[in-house]
Amino acid sequence: MKSSRIFEDMDLRNKPSIDAGRLWERHRDLARIGATAGGGVNRQALSPEDGAARNLVLRWSAERGYEAQLDPIGNLFVRRRGIREELSAVMTGSHLDTQPTGGNYDGVYGVLCGLEAMEALDDAGVSTERSIELVVWMNEEGSRFRPTTMGSAVSAGQLQLAEMLRVRDRAGVTVEKALAEHLALLPRLEHRALGTRGYAYVEAHIEQGPVLENAGMRIGIVEAIQGLYAYEVEVTGFEAHAGTTPNRGRRDALIAAMSLIENLRQLLVDEEDQVRFTVGRLEVLPGSPNTVPGKVLFSIDLRHPDEKRLKRMDERILAACEGTVEGCVIRCRQVLASGPVHFDQGVLKILQHATRSRGEHFLRMVSGATHDAKYVAANTPSAMLFIPCAGGISHNEQESITQADAGIGAQILCDVLLDLAIQAEAGQSNSPRSRVPAD
Amino acid sequence: MKSSRIFEDMDLRNKPSIDAGRLWERHRDLARIGATAGGGVNRQALSPEDGAARNLVLRWSAERGYEAQLDPIGNLFVRRRGIREELSAVMTGSHLDTQPTGGNYDGVYGVLCGLEAMEALDDAGVSTERSIELVVWMNEEGSRFRPTTMGSAVSAGQLQLAEMLRVRDRAGVTVEKALAEHLALLPRLEHRALGTRGYAYVEAHIEQGPVLENAGMRIGIVEAIQGLYAYEVEVTGFEAHAGTTPNRGRRDALIAAMSLIENLRQLLVDEEDQVRFTVGRLEVLPGSPNTVPGKVLFSIDLRHPDEKRLKRMDERILAACEGTVEGCVIRCRQVLASGPVHFDQGVLKILQHATRSRGEHFLRMVSGATHDAKYVAANTPSAMLFIPCAGGISHNEQESITQADAGIGAQILCDVLLDLAIQAEAGQSNSPRSRVPAD
Repeated sequence: MKSSRIFEDMDLRNKPSIDAGRLWERHRDLARIGATAGGGVNRQALSPEDGAARNLVLRWSAERGYEAQLDPIGNLFVRRRGIREELSAVMTGSHLDTQPTGGNYDGVYGVLCGLEAMEALDDAGVSTERSIELVVWMNEEGSRFRPTTMGSAVSAGQLQLAEMLRVRDRAGVTVEKALAEHLALLPRLEHRALGTRGYAYVEAHIEQGPVLENAGMRIGIVEAIQGLYAYEVEVTGFEAHAGTTPNRGRRDALIAAMSLIENLRQLLVDEEDQVRFTVGRLEVLPGSPNTVPGKVLFSIDLRHPDEKRLKRMDERILAACEGTVEGCVIRCRQVLASGPVHFDQGVLKILQHATRSRGEHFLRMVSGATHDAKYVAANTPSAMLFIPCAGGISHNEQESITQADAGIGAQILCDVLLDLAIQAEAGQSNSPRSRVPAD
Repeated sequence: MKSSRIFEDMDLRNKPSIDAGRLWERHRDLARIGATAGGGVNRQALSPEDGAARNLVLRWSAERGYEAQLDPIGNLFVRRRGIREELSAVMTGSHLDTQPTGGNYDGVYGVLCGLEAMEALDDAGVSTERSIELVVWMNEEGSRFRPTTMGSAVSAGQLQLAEMLRVRDRAGVTVEKALAEHLALLPRLEHRALGTRGYAYVEAHIEQGPVLENAGMRIGIVEAIQGLYAYEVEVTGFEAHAGTTPNRGRRDALIAAMSLIENLRQLLVDEEDQVRFTVGRLEVLPGSPNTVPGKVLFSIDLRHPDEKRLKRMDERILAACEGTVEGCVIRCRQVLASGPVHFDQGVLKILQHATRSRGEHFLRMVSGATHDAKYVAANTPSAMLFIPCAGGISHNEQESITQADAGIGAQILCDVLLDLAIQAEAGQSNSPRSRVPAD
């Protein structure tokens, strides 16, 4: 995939310009939906708040005459029609769902940048050969329904639809039921089958880490996403009365879980500080102050850019989680083993070119976080664009970006989408992969 | 308080006999209300199941013509009228609420023993000078609404009614609202004011520990209840993205809580294994697998028979829970400081005498668990009777006792209640404490 001739010839002054003020205002509008007292948002997947956020994006899209479709797992597609409808679309997007105490930019930024880019093309009166599609992926965060990136993974065939529809939240509500409730909140939308493939996919996102800020850079071009292995561990002890049961007679599942987690930390955490090992969820049962815990369930989230290292750590985790600890039985189940993903060289080159054209420097990066682009990349040439967030803080109500950074990121995305959408040389097949030259 | 002359003269063959089969059957009946798949019960305070259990006891009581009253915190009083209504009543009882995964005997046994004793007196055609009252205390377990022994503590003036009515469960429901819902499930009951005092109070209970079983004994006479100090600890770290935040930049509230709990264990747990230190409840927030925990809340339940030791440990806990741990801020609040309670010597002597009269040996014990008798004892001469439970297992679905042990315990309780209820010598005032001779 190379920069098109038409694009190369375009004078910078003639390129469509995004409206950074409008983009910023829309972030404020979305931040009101599911707003928390701490300045963040709680807008978990398929909640009424998630529905309200999608409705607002649909309203903005309808005002521009963009068409919308929904696939069976709840991914939302908003299409700005191209001249040649038979060509595969150029895709962009991200997600609108958040963590329970999430910030105002994670996911939202990518969705609003995509919409802004499409509107900037409208405002400039530019038509493109290919359609441009904005995708709002369902349940990227995975905080209500596990696993994360559910919508993009099902779309890419990496997770099974039927299995995911049966997943339940903590209140016992299935994805299937939540989807039906969600549909009832949305305007009537056309149906789209699973398996959407595009000519290319470019996702803008906040970095969610401190690298760009520390380097004093405004643009990161993401070449890969590190691998993520996830586990669920069950520790079974024995419930007993807190007042009567001597210490020596106890099989306290919490004490055992603590000992196991500390042991895993010792085994895994590295000098270079590249390993990301997190226990983010831990439930103690029955959870009564005067009962010795009989069961503890906890999650492990393990990430590293190097697949070999991940596999070695996987072996260590599974070995440490066998047998008993402090008299309690340990069971460990791997729920995800997703290796690192490397993005498409052609799309990366277009990103680099567009960034330079706007007079910006960029950092080549590996993403610490998983994103929908990881799954989209399985079938569509993909890449990502990062902008900084203050202090690298994310998955936190204090998440913060600047209007200037948001604007330059959106402008580069707009330029890249335009470059891709006017690539329609004769002789190229409809198979996206084959359209991408070795360079 | 001494064994009455009339009682001394009674031939054992003429004493009322409890019906061990009926007592056992009623345990089975109550075990069906809130039954769990694991063979236990989930019948938390003021739940629909708690209401159903009380309704069943009220039905049995009504069949005998006993009158029932309810006080403002939801303690239920079932009265078998005596000949001299102006005399203070002899009280017995326990609770029907359970842990979330509780057993079939904790609390239930004491309630059903009291009812069985009253019915055995009926069946034998025995009238008593004093009324006998069976009390079903509200929320002994404290698993839905904290703290434990709420009903008996409010009744005794040790907790304030207005404050307790405002306590909320995890779903945000107040005790006040739950009480109103509970009342709607019960038949219309007479109102009783707080502050019930009796001539004496005797509570039968399963031991909930292994001491009787290990000693091969069927009866424990409980002389004291160990002290209980309770705390709530809050650990505040900083929510961060699990994939992007380096280990060195994290303030992980779970890692800090684990370190603090391990430190407390090192400080408190003793060689003699007399200290009971339990973290039974621990919540991790936001509880998302891919977010570094920003907050952890946990409970501490600390017990010891010696008040001085408790106070020294209290100082250590408060000192350890100051400042920061692993970059996280620690806050600790003491929610209960209840010293050991020693039971009434007069009532204890009557219990000993009654046990010997039935040809049983007994063990003099200190209760590891807190019971409603601890608070009743503040205003009414009190004591407790224990029977063994298999393996000392309690607060567990596997809680188990034998029909024979249940029967002998109920028989001794019946004998004791009769002995107390026929004590009505002239010249004794209506103040229970003053009736009790130094011995």
